[in-house]
Amino acid sequence: MHPTTTDPSSFHVFDTTLRDGSQREGINLTVSDKLTVARHLDDFGVGFIEGGWPGAVPRDTEFFRRAKDELRLVNAVLVAFGSTRKAGTTAAADPQVQALLDSDAPVVCLVAKSHDKHVSLALRTTLDENLEMVRDTVAHLCAQGRRVFVDCEHFFDGYRANPRYALSVVAAAHDAGAEVVVLCDTNGGMLPTGVREIVTEVHASTGARLGIHAQDDTGCAVANTLAAVEGGATHVQCTANGYGERVGNANLFQVVGNLELKQDMRVLPEGKLREMTRISHAIAEVVNLAPSTHLPYVGVSAFAHKAGLHASAIKVDPDLYQHIDPARVGNDMRMLISDMAGRASIELKGRELGYDLSDDKDLVGRVVNQVKEREAAGYTYEAADASFELLLRDESLGRARFFALESWRAISEQRGDGVPVNEATVKLHAKGERIVATGEGNGPVNALDRALRLALERIYPQLATFELMDYKVRLLEGRHGTDAITRVLVETTDGKQEWSTVGVAENVIAASWQALEDAYTYGLLKAGLTPGVHHTEGPNGA
Amino acid sequence: MHPTTTDPSSFHVFDTTLRDGSQREGINLTVSDKLTVARHLDDFGVGFIEGGWPGAVPRDTEFFRRAKDELRLVNAVLVAFGSTRKAGTTAAADPQVQALLDSDAPVVCLVAKSHDKHVSLALRTTLDENLEMVRDTVAHLCAQGRRVFVDCEHFFDGYRANPRYALSVVAAAHDAGAEVVVLCDTNGGMLPTGVREIVTEVHASTGARLGIHAQDDTGCAVANTLAAVEGGATHVQCTANGYGERVGNANLFQVVGNLELKQDMRVLPEGKLREMTRISHAIAEVVNLAPSTHLPYVGVSAFAHKAGLHASAIKVDPDLYQHIDPARVGNDMRMLISDMAGRASIELKGRELGYDLSDDKDLVGRVVNQVKEREAAGYTYEAADASFELLLRDESLGRARFFALESWRAISEQRGDGVPVNEATVKLHAKGERIVATGEGNGPVNALDRALRLALERIYPQLATFELMDYKVRLLEGRHGTDAITRVLVETTDGKQEWSTVGVAENVIAASWQALEDAYTYGLLKAGLTPGVHHTEGPNGA
Repeated sequence: MHPTTTDPSSFHVFDTTLRDGSQREGINLTVSDKLTVARHLDDFGVGFIEGGWPGAVPRDTEFFRRAKDELRLVNAVLVAFGSTRKAGTTAAADPQVQALLDSDAPVVCLVAKSHDKHVSLALRTTLDENLEMVRDTVAHLCAQGRRVFVDCEHFFDGYRANPRYALSVVAAAHDAGAEVVVLCDTNGGMLPTGVREIVTEVHASTGARLGIHAQDDTGCAVANTLAAVEGGATHVQCTANGYGERVGNANLFQVVGNLELKQDMRVLPEGKLREMTRISHAIAEVVNLAPSTHLPYVGVSAFAHKAGLHASAIKVDPDLYQHIDPARVGNDMRMLISDMAGRASIELKGRELGYDLSDDKDLVGRVVNQVKEREAAGYTYEAADASFELLLRDESLGRARFFALESWRAISEQRGDGVPVNEATVKLHAKGERIVATGEGNGPVNALDRALRLALERIYPQLATFELMDYKVRLLEGRHGTDAITRVLVETTDGKQEWSTVGVAENVIAASWQALEDAYTYGLLKAGLTPGVHHTEGPNGA
Repeated sequence: MHPTTTDPSSFHVFDTTLRDGSQREGINLTVSDKLTVARHLDDFGVGFIEGGWPGAVPRDTEFFRRAKDELRLVNAVLVAFGSTRKAGTTAAADPQVQALLDSDAPVVCLVAKSHDKHVSLALRTTLDENLEMVRDTVAHLCAQGRRVFVDCEHFFDGYRANPRYALSVVAAAHDAGAEVVVLCDTNGGMLPTGVREIVTEVHASTGARLGIHAQDDTGCAVANTLAAVEGGATHVQCTANGYGERVGNANLFQVVGNLELKQDMRVLPEGKLREMTRISHAIAEVVNLAPSTHLPYVGVSAFAHKAGLHASAIKVDPDLYQHIDPARVGNDMRMLISDMAGRASIELKGRELGYDLSDDKDLVGRVVNQVKEREAAGYTYEAADASFELLLRDESLGRARFFALESWRAISEQRGDGVPVNEATVKLHAKGERIVATGEGNGPVNALDRALRLALERIYPQLATFELMDYKVRLLEGRHGTDAITRVLVETTDGKQEWSTVGVAENVIAASWQALEDAYTYGLLKAGLTPGVHHTEGPNGA
């Protein structure tokens, strides 16, 4: 039942992020994006990458054209998606089928109707002609030297409505030379027990090699995929991060993680599982969606702990509360700072950041109180480790200051010509000097950032390497429109490492200022500079 | 195997959003929030609401205190969560146990260790004393007239490591009077087949009434819950929207939706399923997380279609591509506007908005082109129906204008006193007048909104009813920090309906201006006002 294998001929990990995944609301990939995603998928070690529908979608035609020169795949082969030929013609004469051949993809995945009602209502042809369309198209593509997989659309509903016809489609594809017949839960309405039963029956009655394609409309796409494998399927179609139409497809990383770590199957090349978290996040970045924090295995919250109850046990043995060692999927255990956290959590978080707090109960108490107070005001230290470390440092060593602000001002304006202009001025004191600097930018925060850099760069040349990577704005009281408290998260890099800081204010610009001030202060500390120190209350050095 | 019931004594829908759900990273509930969530859950018809851990968490103590006066539950009863007594004492003498009684909750859910390793390493007591702690605490609470459920923590791992001991914990709880023994996959590492097997075995060997508590670390929490029900469990613990520690818990709405719609079980009072989408979104609002758009059943994308292939078939018969009628869960089919959309999608979207475009092929073509061009520039009409309707109206009737902008300017400033000030001025022409107005606000966009209102309210008094509900900012090129293109989405209401508009610019304030201009224009049109009309190119009226 559970093949142990690294041989892609005995088990297929088939990714359709670039075809079905790109149907997700909010995703809109350029050809360059698609090439980049394909490289990440190949790097992850999937066997098959479905690139799109050449001929039907112009940018997919272009993708296959550019892929010939620009993609050097190591683990995967490219798959062109297409349809069985039109009714009333021949596959050889159908331009859509010809476009699949023209793509030069070594594998073609053909969608075929297998639900009788869909044949008559959507395709508007006869049941027999549909079978002939499957046979003819598969045979034609095989004769041209292509490997052919057939996606039986709406298979499970079709099988329940008319099992004999659904099976005849599987048989037609198999007999005509299709290497794999993929049973698709196209509308995503199945549950695992039903999937396992039907896959088992189809496997027994046709002898065809079977695959599974599951949509997630019952929240069971991953489980349905595993159930199909239990039923005899040896080909799984998935998408990175579960992207797909409506609620999405079976999540590649969850399916592969479960097969390898829970079912002891080897479906990826050796060592690739450890790349999972990195590749999940990289693909999210390319498709321009924030990586979902709560995804199994790869989410930043997947191995995060905040309950005081758990935190104290985790100090004893991390394995007590983790289903796997997060390093196996390239993720990491993380302690969350939050007002639910007890002293144990703060100590663990300090240890993670390199501070041993176990001997200083007073300091831990002060930090716990500060965190509670500031989180109540809207700060979040869970997402801003650098601001938390500054808070910890403030409480132990006194506030780190590389400059003292006198004032800032940002102006945005749009005149009759329709071109907005933005200008910001900062006035500050650093190393005994008073500095006034003005920056322009394409927005008020950008102008403020430039003014601050300009003011400080001469005195602290290390600033030149800092770059703002990401800038996020969140309104904390969504019901009050532009009236709400604003939280800004800023991610900064010096080219070697990245750090996150937070600011909270009623005003997006004031909140941004706080996050920028923390970002530059933290960066200068990391660069080894010594700040002017203002002792606050804590007498204890750490 | 599948009880058909509305009787909460034969099947328990047990919600733990307020206890386990609130462990999710980013959730931080006040007592008032908890009371509001409890009302929504009761309204949805769950049988049990676990409110927190009175005695251990001060705000949970307060929740149970206030609940006595302020909660009028119709369908649910409140459950206090707590732990078995400490080692080496008696339940009657343990203040933690007394606090559970003091909460006056009619049901207590006790967490108990059932994994031998956890007993020795985390609890640091003997296996026998742990059994005695279970017996003593259950018996004491039952003697005080409470119904008692017992959560066996880490049951599945424990059962695999030491089945005899794990079963002895179940038996101890059962024999001492626990009504339900809940098998918990605390670290979330299980898959459905294993859950079904173990639940079946435990059911057969102990005769106890069993429940299931599944975490989602393999992406299978919903399927694991269903598998447990197949194995004989008649009590399911879930959280609204799957909130919970790490990646979350079994999603209440998916579990209930699947049991009722796919398994033909009745687990909620009649008619409640249709409230699912509304209640899911309302709870997301209270816990201050954006409702996840891609959740099965309740997400705004759950019944959204964008592929041209599907759109044309959906015109024939929506049921061809939907696993259920979305009205059954209070959701709705939605056509997405996107540059992947063909003419069929635009026609369907027009129909959804009340425009019959089927006779005007030119108009549809122009709208498709406009949408493609503007989405390429960063606009998204999927999330901004009002801006799309304005675009449609522009192309058919000419641009709707209630005012013409001369200029705007926004200034944010922070001086030595640390208090930021914000001021905006707009200059515009409306109904033949030139108007200059200045607004102050707690941020630049808020100041701009107030200046625009002030300028227009005298001429268009209908504006007084408009209120900004939500304001979202997204950077479209996350890699470039404050340098990126900014997309702003604004949600506005007139007290009766809500509408969403979009603006895109390099500058957050300029983007906000566009979205505000669309929002006010759309609102005035909906209020029945006739704009000044500037015919652009289209000769065809709609």
